[in-house]
Amino acid sequence: MSLSLQQELFQQLQSLRLIDPHTHINPHQPASRCLADILGYHYYTELAHSSGLPKDQIEAPGLDPREKVRRLVPWLATIENTAQYSWLLEMCREFFGFQEERISVDNWESLYESSRARMAQPDWEQQVLNTSGLDQVYLTNDFDDSLEGFDRQFYVPCLRTDDLVFHLQRASVRERLAKATGATPGTAAALKAAIGHLFQYFTARNARACAISLPPDFTPQPVSDAVADPLVARVFSGAELTADELVTLSQFVFWSLAEFCDQFRLPFDLMIGVNRRVYEQGVFQGQDLFDSRVSLIQYRILLNAFPRVIFPISVLAETSNQELVSYAWIFPNVVTSGHWWYSNIPVFIERDTRARLQAVPATKQIGYYSDMYKLEFALPKFAMYRRILARVLADDFVIGRRWSVERALDLGKQVLRGNVETIFGGIASR
Amino acid sequence: MSLSLQQELFQQLQSLRLIDPHTHINPHQPASRCLADILGYHYYTELAHSSGLPKDQIEAPGLDPREKVRRLVPWLATIENTAQYSWLLEMCREFFGFQEERISVDNWESLYESSRARMAQPDWEQQVLNTSGLDQVYLTNDFDDSLEGFDRQFYVPCLRTDDLVFHLQRASVRERLAKATGATPGTAAALKAAIGHLFQYFTARNARACAISLPPDFTPQPVSDAVADPLVARVFSGAELTADELVTLSQFVFWSLAEFCDQFRLPFDLMIGVNRRVYEQGVFQGQDLFDSRVSLIQYRILLNAFPRVIFPISVLAETSNQELVSYAWIFPNVVTSGHWWYSNIPVFIERDTRARLQAVPATKQIGYYSDMYKLEFALPKFAMYRRILARVLADDFVIGRRWSVERALDLGKQVLRGNVETIFGGIASR
Amino acid sequence: MSLSLQQELFQQLQSLRLIDPHTHINPHQPASRCLADILGYHYYTELAHSSGLPKDQIEAPGLDPREKVRRLVPWLATIENTAQYSWLLEMCREFFGFQEERISVDNWESLYESSRARMAQPDWEQQVLNTSGLDQVYLTNDFDDSLEGFDRQFYVPCLRTDDLVFHLQRASVRERLAKATGATPGTAAALKAAIGHLFQYFTARNARACAISLPPDFTPQPVSDAVADPLVARVFSGAELTADELVTLSQFVFWSLAEFCDQFRLPFDLMIGVNRRVYEQGVFQGQDLFDSRVSLIQYRILLNAFPRVIFPISVLAETSNQELVSYAWIFPNVVTSGHWWYSNIPVFIERDTRARLQAVPATKQIGYYSDMYKLEFALPKFAMYRRILARVLADDFVIGRRWSVERALDLGKQVLRGNVETIFGGIASR
Repeated sequence: MSLSLQQELFQQLQSLRLIDPHTHINPHQPASRCLADILGYHYYTELAHSSGLPKDQIEAPGLDPREKVRRLVPWLATIENTAQYSWLLEMCREFFGFQEERISVDNWESLYESSRARMAQPDWEQQVLNTSGLDQVYLTNDFDDSLEGFDRQFYVPCLRTDDLVFHLQRASVRERLAKATGATPGTAAALKAAIGHLFQYFTARNARACAISLPPDFTPQPVSDAVADPLVARVFSGAELTADELVTLSQFVFWSLAEFCDQFRLPFDLMIGVNRRVYEQGVFQGQDLFDSRVSLIQYRILLNAFPRVIFPISVLAETSNQELVSYAWIFPNVVTSGHWWYSNIPVFIERDTRARLQAVPATKQIGYYSDMYKLEFALPKFAMYRRILARVLADDFVIGRRWSVERALDLGKQVLRGNVETIFGGIASR
Repeated sequence: MSLSLQQELFQQLQSLRLIDPHTHINPHQPASRCLADILGYHYYTELAHSSGLPKDQIEAPGLDPREKVRRLVPWLATIENTAQYSWLLEMCREFFGFQEERISVDNWESLYESSRARMAQPDWEQQVLNTSGLDQVYLTNDFDDSLEGFDRQFYVPCLRTDDLVFHLQRASVRERLAKATGATPGTAAALKAAIGHLFQYFTARNARACAISLPPDFTPQPVSDAVADPLVARVFSGAELTADELVTLSQFVFWSLAEFCDQFRLPFDLMIGVNRRVYEQGVFQGQDLFDSRVSLIQYRILLNAFPRVIFPISVLAETSNQELVSYAWIFPNVVTSGHWWYSNIPVFIERDTRARLQAVPATKQIGYYSDMYKLEFALPKFAMYRRILARVLADDFVIGRRWSVERALDLGKQVLRGNVETIFGGIASR
Repeated sequence: MSLSLQQELFQQLQSLRLIDPHTHINPHQPASRCLADILGYHYYTELAHSSGLPKDQIEAPGLDPREKVRRLVPWLATIENTAQYSWLLEMCREFFGFQEERISVDNWESLYESSRARMAQPDWEQQVLNTSGLDQVYLTNDFDDSLEGFDRQFYVPCLRTDDLVFHLQRASVRERLAKATGATPGTAAALKAAIGHLFQYFTARNARACAISLPPDFTPQPVSDAVADPLVARVFSGAELTADELVTLSQFVFWSLAEFCDQFRLPFDLMIGVNRRVYEQGVFQGQDLFDSRVSLIQYRILLNAFPRVIFPISVLAETSNQELVSYAWIFPNVVTSGHWWYSNIPVFIERDTRARLQAVPATKQIGYYSDMYKLEFALPKFAMYRRILARVLADDFVIGRRWSVERALDLGKQVLRGNVETIFGGIASR
């Protein structure tokens, strides 16, 4: 009974068109061109490497895409159990008509050719969007992105700020800032002005959020201009800062971002908990991990200081989910946001979804985002989420609370789509 | 099959009369007088505020109760998904004959009037107790509570000690202590004597437990009189203590409480993990949160030092439950106690119940307490727990272990009621 | 449907013969001789003590085994709900033909006698191995174990190193080292040479792993010989080291072990998270607990430094499982290993198994080990795991992913047995 009910709810949720509120899509090349674009996603390269594939076999400069796939395919046998593999299979089935049980050394070549033919069609991007039911796709843009040359009503810009907060000691970042804003700040005020310029630029081009990923040990707090002034002057003169000084500078820039989010009425996406480059010999984008010893109490001052800024918060460690639920239950400006990275597998999604639906106001939950680099991934990732959401709605609401199917569906639609519109501003441009 | 089995177990568990071993009931006004008493519970005001209701709209001094409800009702639409809302609906259905699917701006007035009429009946308190099957209700009493004017065999006193341990630097607390004990201690010994006086007073009036809530960073340890003497002298002279000195003073008082629990044979309820006033602009009682980075290892010295004191322990963070299970499995004096606050939602209750029933002696588990402020809440909260308990008994014991329904029920009854009696001393007065 | 599917999968998994990759079996006396050997397992003595049985009643020197059982049996009534008790019952049923619902004061004596008769049969060890389907049993050997007098192809040695890393300050440990290696090292190099001698000795005698349990606060890092030299000299001269010096010495020895694992191609089993002697008055082996505030980020330097060493990692706190899953997903040299101690109860095993099967390459998971002290325990412990594995395979793979039963079984067999062979080297001797 519960299974067929789940099935019914899933079918209904599948028919819903979506806005994907967080991706890494390149709007100039949003869809894949061949299987290497799909298998080159770090979820596959890192798992294949973890299983034994030497990194240099797939990261050699100028490696032919077909050869890259040929080298990856044998390792798929070791990861068929993973959720990540199930996305791959679902993509191949839905987009390329793949019929077999597994992708193997015996059948990958025909898949490669048939998929390449489809991806070469001039309207492939549109085909993917249609099949996936995507109405809008949010981007992750570097602060110096021109945001030109694509449809910003569909591919919605988002100001990603990791570089500004954590990497001003890198000359390349300072040069990019100089190029984007014309400024080489020598004071705290000048740095703030440059950041303000970026907010102006981005919001004028339909940006709907400021976003950042944060390490487990980061604790935001205000830093006065007087304290920041010498740090800004020195870092922009190319001097080395101490570790402590870098933390203070990060806090200063971060706080400035929050101030501008307040001023420009932008939600501030916080993605909390990642340690970068933990496995330094890992494949591209397959080096980061985390430390579950992190608490939202570290954000106490921030959340109190900016009551008008909406903070959609993602946590990397599943052990942080109860804190996220509780902070969203208490703080008006905290919104639960998706299932991030290492928490984006079914067992954790289900637990976390259940807790959020049971204790956070329905209006304050962004159910899911794909985090994808290529458009084809939205379909299997959202399908995974929708299956789980259907199960939770069936068990906890239709069966557990005796809701009608329609009412449960309304809740599902709200967290899948409705809240994305109300929180980030909907489809109409500003 | 499993569903009907659950139903059968639930029905049997529902017929069991209860002792509620931890509440915040005011014995002089235990039941609600109108819907505002129910909707004014912080679980609703904080969720409505979190959804967008400005705090001052419901906390204006002298606000008419009916008007308060009128202002809260529109926000219920945003929290219908929550477990907290399900309690509200169940109360309205069971106590006030409410028949509709939701409480809305269209129907709340008739609910308000009909419920008010029932609550105005002179035997309303007794009606609630009968419908809820409550045989005894434990209180949370300030240390200076007279404990007079109510039936202490039914409303069982409990000495709550947060103020003594954490707030002696407040003049009001010292004054209340002076009034209650006649003492303004100038030495550690004198402070201990004053505390002993409170234990004497409370136990002579049927108190069955000493209780306290503790922040995540608290670590009990013994403090010698020699170290405590100057701190006691200074704090009672109105001098300011440093943060470190306040911690030492807290440890001294806490340790003294444990000594008196030993001497007076009182269980010491520890409620571990709350950070107070995290969201300072929150509604009344809707400001506290937590930091999941806490461990029972902090209580190692205490648990070893007082083998004869029973410590019923509640943890606020669900991530602490496995530690609680393991410490109760090893330490004879550790008892698992209920599902506290942010862990009191079905998904966490189910996980925690399952772990406790699988690994802690059956005699060392207090299944549930309501934590209620008004009597009407025991019914839906215990029903939530009993539904979950029925499911765990069905899945893990009747199906998983092939126990008979009767045997599973015996286990359920033991954690729901039997252990409350053996641990806190049963219904007969001492 | 799901239940009968689970049953089918469980039956198939039950027919699989096993290698148990981590036990504490004494190969000179592997099976129990009477019920006291079984009930004397710390899982029962500590639970009985936790329920109220005074320690001295079961730890009196020279206590008759039958009397010990007589004293323990009444306390079983308090722990019938536990998973640990279910193992006991399953052993009594499978090995001794016990038919009753519970072991009680009324029936234990006949059970004692009948079981004693069976255990007295000369081929009892072989009967247990046959009934349990065990092909090989890995041991936990002290570094000075002679490894003589037993079949090392069946009872596979494993070099346990806690004493070397954490207890060189004990004269008895240094004396054992001197006896085993002929060395009383005065320098870092000499200590390394002595350790190398142990690796030589063990690997020549079919040792397949080096193993250690680690406290939550341990962080491995390299220590230069120059730094270690004076510490080694002093500790071997009997001088007291400071706490900080002991940590440095531990890090030095630990790092040396990793170097030898690299050199000798031995997997290094890390069992992370135990605090020893937390409850000092506890029964034998019933005194240890943990602090869930631990992270694999503490092992970052180690995991990067030894890419060729396989680290099968067990975590004591269930809250560490997601980190373990994620580190095994990224690091080629990290393997998930079993369900350790306080995480070895069904609710945690199921969650952890689900996460591992969903996100870690199938080749990098050691499903289970028994951790047993007596052979009889493998049967019920592995059966518990197999029931859970059957459920996860049924729900997540056959139903959720539409795998055939055969394919799901292949995955189950791989984590239950296949990986043990590939990771530790299979049955053939080296």
